[in-house]
Amino acid sequence: MKSSEKPKTPSGMRDFGPLEMVKRNFIIENVKNVFKKYGFDNIETPAMEQLSTLTGKYGDEGDQLLFKVLNSGPFLDKVKEEDFVKDSKQLMPLISEKGLKYDLTVPFARYVVMNRHNVTFPFKRFQVQPVWRADRPQRGRYREFYQCDADVIGSKSLIQEAEILLMIRDAYQSLNLDEYVIKLNNRKILTGISEAIGMAGKESDFCVAIDKLDKAGQEKVFDELRNKGCPEESFKLIEELLATPSADQIKYLKKFLVDQPIGIQGIKEIEEVFNYVKNVNGLKIEFDLTLARGLSYYTGAIFEVKPLNSKIGSINGGGRYDDLTGVFGLDDVSGVGISFGIDRIYDVLEEKNLFPDTVSNITQLMIICMDEESQLHGFEIGQKLREANINTYIYPDLVKMKKIFSYADKNNIPYVMVIGTNEMEQKQYNLKNMISGEQVSLTIEKVIDTLKKK
Amino acid sequence: MKSSEKPKTPSGMRDFGPLEMVKRNFIIENVKNVFKKYGFDNIETPAMEQLSTLTGKYGDEGDQLLFKVLNSGPFLDKVKEEDFVKDSKQLMPLISEKGLKYDLTVPFARYVVMNRHNVTFPFKRFQVQPVWRADRPQRGRYREFYQCDADVIGSKSLIQEAEILLMIRDAYQSLNLDEYVIKLNNRKILTGISEAIGMAGKESDFCVAIDKLDKAGQEKVFDELRNKGCPEESFKLIEELLATPSADQIKYLKKFLVDQPIGIQGIKEIEEVFNYVKNVNGLKIEFDLTLARGLSYYTGAIFEVKPLNSKIGSINGGGRYDDLTGVFGLDDVSGVGISFGIDRIYDVLEEKNLFPDTVSNITQLMIICMDEESQLHGFEIGQKLREANINTYIYPDLVKMKKIFSYADKNNIPYVMVIGTNEMEQKQYNLKNMISGEQVSLTIEKVIDTLKKK
Repeated sequence: MKSSEKPKTPSGMRDFGPLEMVKRNFIIENVKNVFKKYGFDNIETPAMEQLSTLTGKYGDEGDQLLFKVLNSGPFLDKVKEEDFVKDSKQLMPLISEKGLKYDLTVPFARYVVMNRHNVTFPFKRFQVQPVWRADRPQRGRYREFYQCDADVIGSKSLIQEAEILLMIRDAYQSLNLDEYVIKLNNRKILTGISEAIGMAGKESDFCVAIDKLDKAGQEKVFDELRNKGCPEESFKLIEELLATPSADQIKYLKKFLVDQPIGIQGIKEIEEVFNYVKNVNGLKIEFDLTLARGLSYYTGAIFEVKPLNSKIGSINGGGRYDDLTGVFGLDDVSGVGISFGIDRIYDVLEEKNLFPDTVSNITQLMIICMDEESQLHGFEIGQKLREANINTYIYPDLVKMKKIFSYADKNNIPYVMVIGTNEMEQKQYNLKNMISGEQVSLTIEKVIDTLKKK
Repeated sequence: MKSSEKPKTPSGMRDFGPLEMVKRNFIIENVKNVFKKYGFDNIETPAMEQLSTLTGKYGDEGDQLLFKVLNSGPFLDKVKEEDFVKDSKQLMPLISEKGLKYDLTVPFARYVVMNRHNVTFPFKRFQVQPVWRADRPQRGRYREFYQCDADVIGSKSLIQEAEILLMIRDAYQSLNLDEYVIKLNNRKILTGISEAIGMAGKESDFCVAIDKLDKAGQEKVFDELRNKGCPEESFKLIEELLATPSADQIKYLKKFLVDQPIGIQGIKEIEEVFNYVKNVNGLKIEFDLTLARGLSYYTGAIFEVKPLNSKIGSINGGGRYDDLTGVFGLDDVSGVGISFGIDRIYDVLEEKNLFPDTVSNITQLMIICMDEESQLHGFEIGQKLREANINTYIYPDLVKMKKIFSYADKNNIPYVMVIGTNEMEQKQYNLKNMISGEQVSLTIEKVIDTLKKK
């Protein structure tokens, strides 16, 4: 069946071509290696989940954004006449039972509960898979994107929080990104503050407002707090708190929260984490009492990573939660997790020109053959190179040399070797460096040596 | 929102736990490395495609097996009153515009056509992604499974066919699988035979019947051919052909097909491929004139790989096609591709016990701390080990030693190191091999040396 229509990808979804893939893989492989270095195991869950697993976990808006999969076969057969009404909300559950996963966290919780008798706790797992959200597509927001998460569940030890800080350091070290800061806070401190300013029980409103300080500014945040019932006499307190220099905040908070045991507990936790990492080199970490994080399920440490001198916002987020699996009937499983924003990290590395030049040189050498006989010879030479683990492209067609060189150039192949009658007779091959233009005549063994050193 | 319902995965879809993942990754990484070694580039396409891209490409049955995604938002709003009928086939296109991809080939063709001005031909691409089919789930057949494909398009050179044979050899070498045979045939030969036996124009019927020789036997295949209009006098010819020993078949066919130019062309192609690989070591290849392959789009070489002494069927399939992208308006792009069946290869390696023992030892060492002070020390020691690229798990909780050792054991962690007051004072650590039970007391530098050698 021919279609004259121009083919396209669905709105908000992307193809990744070879160059994007090597760059994405550079990020993903480095992050995965860090996860492994810290003892995390890889799992994968299906793209689809039962809608009963997904709905009600992401708020009303989240439920709207789930991609629903039509039941297979004649999906209307099981719908009763009287239920067949032209109302999307009523008809949907009758014709769709499955949805595409919205994040990696809920499927992970479902996995843990299903495998509770096989999983050994604490369970350290990482997962790198695409997720789908029927959001309105816009610049930098996609309907399909990868999440790259690591979580430890079944341990309350703060050594996990400390390890996550090291993981962030190691990941960005391997990606050559130096300009960033890890912001750290603790939800218990925010709870304590909300109690101290007369907003007890309104911790969530307090966090939502505080989260906007960065973008909306103090005045607007104060207006919001006022609307949410923050007593007038508290604003002076908050102002003082916010004006305290970062380095003195913890000391200040100890007094400020003296009557809020939960707040004091939060400070103790932060201090314990800082104690673990006090001798660690290269850790770019900052306590930030205005860091609140949107999600409601955090109960302890929360953190974000912000690139410095960049247009791009947070590239990591995470924190501790106390009841991830409770929704599926397994209570009291505390956990702490970190998520790497692959798309945003990609944008930061591009912006700062940090991808190594060699990242795209997956194919190391192209062999060009002058005629049919040299093709046979090239085929043999190709085998020797590949046996030596050199990624080799044998150009298959006998076309103009210029065309082939331009091919190698466009595809970032760093070396080219032409094989003709002379080369076959003398067993000496011209290895041309496509960047410098330099050419050397070498035996195949020397060609291998040269390329192996790169 | 609590749900008391037991959570489950959708029918025919699987979670992959840590041990399955390391084994799957072992296969996938080895195959990917072979693809790269032969100059293939990685691409990825979205999980979803427009239904207009997918439908009509896999036959009527295939269209039925596509998972359709419900349009987002109030999907019935755009359906006119008169079109709102209780008929699944009529309503479906009005409420669903996207589907999940059924294979990697059609999205690849769509990609090539969309990027025709950026792609340099010949384009060698590999792609490893899940696909979805609403098949009835059964043993070994899943509704979500990975495909692992490499294709070269835009070149008619038979050097590609020869390279694919080497790729198969290299892949199974890296997976330690020795017991297999590559079956090779050419569709042009099958076309020639169908002409020679009086079934010109019925090549497809001929191939479908011949494909069953293995399972149904000669008699039933002959019945089918008879039904499809094969003249009675031809059966003696076919019988003779099939009785010819494999080694003599090509010689025999040269006479048999002397009046069928297309058949002779097929033989020439096979001979050219054999000529390329005549000096290659370790190639387990066999010409098999009964190999037909189901798919209709093949036009040249076809191949399959069968494991020997195994319950499992074909683990690879592929071949040359002449018009992959024509359906999207780009004609005359010849290509040849190979697909690795990851799930089946997994089953063969399990069946033959070929996964290396060490495949599951991703985490190399577990550190166990006796008390809070040794946890701080363990944290520091952990850093040294990780700096040396040793994957290290610091057990975070202070619980019974026995419980932790059993944890290490269950999770295939090969080494364990306990840290207490003595170890901290003397800077000597007991490294215990969990398999042999052997213990040695070493400095941290020697621990690193020991583990690096593994």
